[in-house]
Order: sequence, then C-alpha cells, then structure tokens
Amino acid sequence: MRVDLIQYTPDPEKVVAAAARLCYSADPVPELLDRLEDETVARFVRKLRDMGHLSPFEHVSFQFSIDGVSRVLSHQLVRHRIASYSQRSQRYVKENGFEYVVPPSIQRSPEAMERFAKVMTNLQEEYRALQAMVPAEDARFVLPNACTTSLMATFNARSLLNFFEHRTCMRAQWEIRTLAEKMLELVRGAAPNLFSEAGPTCVTQGVCHQGAYSCGRLKTLEGKKT
Amino acid sequence: MRVDLIQYTPDPEKVVAAAARLCYSADPVPELLDRLEDETVARFVRKLRDMGHLSPFEHVSFQFSIDGVSRVLSHQLVRHRIASYSQRSQRYVKENGFEYVVPPSIQRSPEAMERFAKVMTNLQEEYRALQAMVPAEDARFVLPNACTTSLMATFNARSLLNFFEHRTCMRAQWEIRTLAEKMLELVRGAAPNLFSEAGPTCVTQGVCHQGAYSCGRLKTLEGKKT
Amino acid sequence: MRVDLIQYTPDPEKVVAAAARLCYSADPVPELLDRLEDETVARFVRKLRDMGHLSPFEHVSFQFSIDGVSRVLSHQLVRHRIASYSQRSQRYVKENGFEYVVPPSIQRSPEAMERFAKVMTNLQEEYRALQAMVPAEDARFVLPNACTTSLMATFNARSLLNFFEHRTCMRAQWEIRTLAEKMLELVRGAAPNLFSEAGPTCVTQGVCHQGAYSCGRLKTLEGKKT
Amino acid sequence: MRVDLIQYTPDPEKVVAAAARLCYSADPVPELLDRLEDETVARFVRKLRDMGHLSPFEHVSFQFSIDGVSRVLSHQLVRHRIASYSQRSQRYVKENGFEYVVPPSIQRSPEAMERFAKVMTNLQEEYRALQAMVPAEDARFVLPNACTTSLMATFNARSLLNFFEHRTCMRAQWEIRTLAEKMLELVRGAAPNLFSEAGPTCVTQGVCHQGAYSCGRLKTLEGKKT
Repeated sequence: MRVDLIQYTPDPEKVVAAAARLCYSADPVPELLDRLEDETVARFVRKLRDMGHLSPFEHVSFQFSIDGVSRVLSHQLVRHRIASYSQRSQRYVKENGFEYVVPPSIQRSPEAMERFAKVMTNLQEEYRALQAMVPAEDARFVLPNACTTSLMATFNARSLLNFFEHRTCMRAQWEIRTLAEKMLELVRGAAPNLFSEAGPTCVTQGVCHQGAYSCGRLKTLEGKKT
Repeated sequence: MRVDLIQYTPDPEKVVAAAARLCYSADPVPELLDRLEDETVARFVRKLRDMGHLSPFEHVSFQFSIDGVSRVLSHQLVRHRIASYSQRSQRYVKENGFEYVVPPSIQRSPEAMERFAKVMTNLQEEYRALQAMVPAEDARFVLPNACTTSLMATFNARSLLNFFEHRTCMRAQWEIRTLAEKMLELVRGAAPNLFSEAGPTCVTQGVCHQGAYSCGRLKTLEGKKT
Repeated sequence: MRVDLIQYTPDPEKVVAAAARLCYSADPVPELLDRLEDETVARFVRKLRDMGHLSPFEHVSFQFSIDGVSRVLSHQLVRHRIASYSQRSQRYVKENGFEYVVPPSIQRSPEAMERFAKVMTNLQEEYRALQAMVPAEDARFVLPNACTTSLMATFNARSLLNFFEHRTCMRAQWEIRTLAEKMLELVRGAAPNLFSEAGPTCVTQGVCHQGAYSCGRLKTLEGKKT
Repeated sequence: MRVDLIQYTPDPEKVVAAAARLCYSADPVPELLDRLEDETVARFVRKLRDMGHLSPFEHVSFQFSIDGVSRVLSHQLVRHRIASYSQRSQRYVKENGFEYVVPPSIQRSPEAMERFAKVMTNLQEEYRALQAMVPAEDARFVLPNACTTSLMATFNARSLLNFFEHRTCMRAQWEIRTLAEKMLELVRGAAPNLFSEAGPTCVTQGVCHQGAYSCGRLKTLEGKKT
C-alpha cells in the first residue's frame, strides 16, 4: 500500500479559524485572515474541535493518491459518501499479471500462503485465457477481492474526522485501518492542530460503541486521566 | 438477479405535485394536498420534469431489495452517493458454497463457460480451506468479483432519474443496466408520471455524450420526431 | 406554527430492522421481512440505536409540512443539507398583508409588543407601496425576518436524529427548537422505537458541548442514573 | 458586494487531469502527475467537460469570502447543498447601524429610493430600541431582507459548474446572478480550462428550460454556430 497526500487547501488551519471567527464577528473574512496570528489559530482550532463545532472544518480539503490496495478496501472506502473518488477501471484497464494484497494472517501461515499464492497464479492465468475469449469487462468476473486497485480520494477535514473515527478503531478491518492510519499521519503533518486529537471515538468522544467486542482502549485512556 | 420494490412513500405523485405547488402559492401544504385532483397531478408532474424543475422529486423515496448480483455491480452501485445502502457483509457472513453471476458472453461460449465454472468450483474449495486456517474476513480475499451479494438500496425520485440516465444507457455495463431497467419498471408501476420519460440522456435530454461510442439511438429518436 | 407529518415510508421500523439484519445474514431481504416479528423489531431497532449503528435508519423518510414560521427559522432549517426542501417563494408569491411571528420575549413586554406591531404594520404598507413601483422580488427587500413562510421538508430517520440532537437542545434558538419538538412528537407517534431516545446530545450520548452555557440538564440526567 | 477567492486547491487543472487519467491507466497517480504536461492538461480537461465526465472536477475546491450581500441572497445560496458555509450570525452579532442592499430597480426610482431609505433608517432605530428591551436574537425579527451578511463558501469545481448553470442564467434573481458572475470570473482566473465554457445551460448544454420566459440567448448562440 502506498498513500500520498498530493495536494491540500493552502494554509488550512488559518482558513478554518477565519471561517469560525466570521460567525461571531462583524468583520469580513479578508480582514479576519489578516489579523489571525499562528498561536491564536492553533488555540482557536483546538477549541472548535473540543466543542464539536465542526462545520468550519469543511472549508479545507485533502487529496490523496492510494495505490496497491485491494478491492475489499476500495468497496469499503467508497461507502464514505461525503468525499470524491476516481478509481482505476477494471472495465477499461486490462489486469493481466495483476498484483494482489496478502492478508497478514495468511502471510503468517506457510500452508495458507502456499494455497493463496497458487490461487492467485491460477487466477492470473484464467483471467488471461478468458480475456482472449470474452471482453475484459466480463473476464474480470474471475478476478479476486485481493486484486489491487488505485484511487484518488478527496475528503474535507470534517469528513476525514468522521472517517478516522470509524476506520482507525481497532475493530475496523485491518487493511482500511492501515490506510486510515497512514492518511491520519499525512494530514497531521500538514495541519497538526486540526487533527491532533483525531482517532476512534474512544479518543475523540470518550465513548466506545463496540460493547462486548471492545478492545479495551477506552478503559486504558480513562485510567490515564485519573 | 432478483429486484423487489419493498416500500415507497405513499401517494408519491401527489406529494411531488404539492411540493411544487407550494413554491408558487400562498396556501399551506395540507390545503394544497386536499385540492389536488388526479388529472392535475399527472399533468403538473410531467410539466415539472420537462422544465427540469426536479427538486420536488426529492420528497419521495423508494426502497429496493436487490439479490443475486455480483460485487462488480455492487461496487458500481454504491458510487451513487445520494442514496442509502445496506449490504451483506463478507466479513461477518461466511460464503461457503457461494453463488456466482455468469456474464452472458461467457454463457454463450461453451469453452469459456467450462473454464469459468471450474474456476468457481475451485474458488469455493479454496475459500473453504483457507477459512479453516484464517478468519473468514481474510479468506474472502480469494472470492471472485462474480460472487453474489444482497443489498437494500433507497433512492429518492430525483436521484433515481440521475441513476437511470447513467445506467440505462446502452454503454453502461450490462449487469448494472439490467438492474437499472428492472428498477425503472418497478417505479413506473408505482408512479407512472414521475418516471414516464426516465431513461438515458438521449431520451431525457435529447443528448448523447458517448461520441464515437454512441449506440446510435439518439439518431433513431430524432428520426421519429421529424 | 403548524406542523403536519403528511407522509412517511410505511412500516418504518420493520424496514430499518430488515436493512440491519441483511448485513449479517445470508438471506435476502424479502424473506427477512416475512420473518420479522413486532417484538423482535422493537428490540433490534433499539439495539442499533444504542450501538450507534445508524446507517439502516436512512432507509425510511418522513415528509413534513411546516407553516407559519419565520424566515429566521427557515434560513436555519435549510442549513441541514441531508434533507429536501420546497419553500414558498417571496419572488413569485406576493406578500401583501403578510403574517408574522412574534418572539415570546416581545409578547411578554407590552412596550416591546407595541413597537413591534407598529413596525410590522408599517412594513406591510411600505411593501405594498414599493410593490406598486418595482417588481415584487425587489419590494421584498423591506420584508422583515418575522414574515412567515411555508415549507415542505423531507428527512430520513438518521438525518432527523442529527437534527434533533442540534435543535432540541435548550441552547438552540427558541423557534427552531419548538419546530424540532413538534417534529419529534410526530415521528414518535409514527415510529416510537426509532425515536424513543431521540433528543439533544445529553440524552443521546450523555455529552454536553455547551461548556459554560450548558443548561445543566446533563447533570440532572446523571443524577437520576445513580 | 465584495467577493474574494481566498484559497483553492493548488494546481487545480493538473489534479483534475490526473484523476481522470487514473481511471483508464495502470499507473499510480504520482507518476501520472509527473508525466502530465501543461498542454495535455488543458486539452484533456476540456474534453472531460465536453463529454460530461465531471466526477474528476470534484477533487479541487475553491474558498470564497462574500461580503455585503443581502439575506435574500444568502437564503438562496445555502440551498446549494453540495458546498460548505460559514455565515455571520444575527443571533450573536449585534446589527446596530446595519448596512443594507438596495435593488437597482429601487435605485433608479427617486420616489422608491426615498421610501426605501426611510424604511431602513426606521428599522435601524427600531432594532436598537427593541434590542434594549429583549435579546438581540429576538430584536432581529424586525431586520429586513436587505440587511447585509458575510459568508465563507467552499465549492468543489463540479458543484460550481452546477451553481453557474442555475445562477448565471438571465432568469436567476439579479443579486445572486451578480455573485455567480463574480465567482465565475475569479475561478476562471485560477483555472481557465476548468471553467472556460461554464455558464447557464444554453451555453453548457445548448438547452433552455425557461420556455416562454426564455431570454432568447439560446437562439443567438445557435445563430452564431450556423
């Protein structure tokens, strides 16, 4: 998996702070922007997040390039509807000799790994054979979930916070959790104050919805506070 | 593929007509509803559609149950973001002896069909074997695109019109086109005036965006008009 | 203010329960619907809500007719973007002799009330006079925020829960809070289990984001639990 | 009215072109970006627009600061739901000595102008008087539609194209049309190829939905082509 932050709204923290200031001020945005100093921005942005006043976070967006992920992952990813996606088409791009993702549990078991690799090699052959007989868009019906894909994905900061709540949770599926962790690291580099407390709901809201399946992190976090 | 219209907003055409009337009237909605007669509703709804005044169409929604479709289809379907989906999870539901979709081009070729069926049988076995060694959520990495899934999908009438424009086009992928045609038939039964002219853009707007790949239907339609 | 629930998806709790069941079941939706019994539905729907698993709530929607509210209210209402609106147009409908909303704080003060009523009468005259000289769409620039409007608004149940979290809070502006309370009462009649615990975040999440401006209800609720 | 483009996604045309390329290419986005040359980008982006393949346009967004507009305008603006807004609050910001927008039709008529100015002066006084007696959030019920507001608004390029189709049409209300024209000029400066053919539907689709109310521009455009 390779994830790059290819672009984002310049000066993202200042934009968010100015948007929030505007709501409570008689001054126009350009003047608010001129007057905002870095330290104020940092403090103000953190306060917004703590108060759950997240609409100003929508004004900045982040463009990610995502490569070498499975279609298990991409099918989950595009369920986040407040975002934009472009994805490599299995209809128009031929997948001869496709690459594939190997789950860690399979990597760890030599026996499972051998079976898995053999299945993949076999499917590469079968795809190639079928593609000689029928259109590529139909041959792809044999392609496995493991087959890799590439996407460009754009999220605004508010939608990202929601994405991180769901997908950095220990109960999220491992591949999309890895993606979410990489994305979080990248945006933290670009806008540390917007994302300093981003993460699963145990971190952001002090709440765990996983019941009997909880990883127990919430208790650890609560322990630290006392 | 099995598609059912399991519910929809009652009296959908009257609701749309009342919403549109409201914009140009001093009367409240309950009175508008009381006064609307069937014939007026039909005429009025068609006029809205012809004028491209589609926001009133959002007030009514349709709930579909969709079974026996491939994940090629479901991955495309959920890209329509102004809609709601629930889908059978390959993470939590075991897919032993999974069913699969066979593309018509493969069905037509005995040689391709034999290969394809053999691949599917082999994958059923491999999935079962892997699932004994690793969690089902990882074994599924060998499952093919052809493997069937089930969804509940809810669209409002405006989003449906957009869905039909893209997916009943002859250039749409055959499986999702079949789904779109079935959905269109079902909603036409429930609300004929809302959907009487629904279809690809050659039907709805007299425009074809497919350039050199056009199916030529637009020319036939234009021929009829003269 | 008059609020009516004019339509909603039939059998809403069963639809939500079937959507949720589908995710964890190998059976298609029509069979799930057949097998669901009322008691199971009630229990299951409440469990979903408690776990914050809210996507199945999107499959049912509610159509409201809203009359006699101010444009202070409507400007706030339409900020809820996951919803559909049709609103009486001040551009096309003449507002001669317009009705208006009087804030309770003004009603309680005879002196304020007298001033306020005089302003409204004056504006009715000025609007009429201007409208004889310029188009109605320009004369309306003198119309006050208090001037009433009518809307049809459609929300799905998940978006409604979010709406109630923000707008039934004691810190919400009084007019939209009144609307939210009326809407909540109406949908509770139609789908008691979907909305039994709906309300501000102190009720739904045990959290208050109002800081120093908190109404103190959270403390009362916590007191009751002990 | 003052409109500023305060930020936007850097290199917007290249981002859109790379997103579109990705769909039909086996290469990852970073490599596609490296290889794209300016001339190719321009040609490619125009082709996408002509084919109505607009989803790649969603990956870039534009942040506008909007000042000195009426609440007639802002109430229309926020109806565009695929966008983000922050707006000066009449609840928290006191509007003593508020500024106001004067419609051109009123400016042109000395008699109308005199009445209008007198109404505004009177409302400034009444607002001040009421605000001494009741909370500012209730005193604002006398504020007129003409009263100015400030907003920050963020749109992606696809949503902007839709906004321009509706709001640069000659039939759009004059104030929001002025805003749309200013916004279009600003984004054309930043991304000329994305917006070169942006405008009302007569320009973008060769279609007019205004029927008997059409401004006739479509006929002029068609005349030019012949």
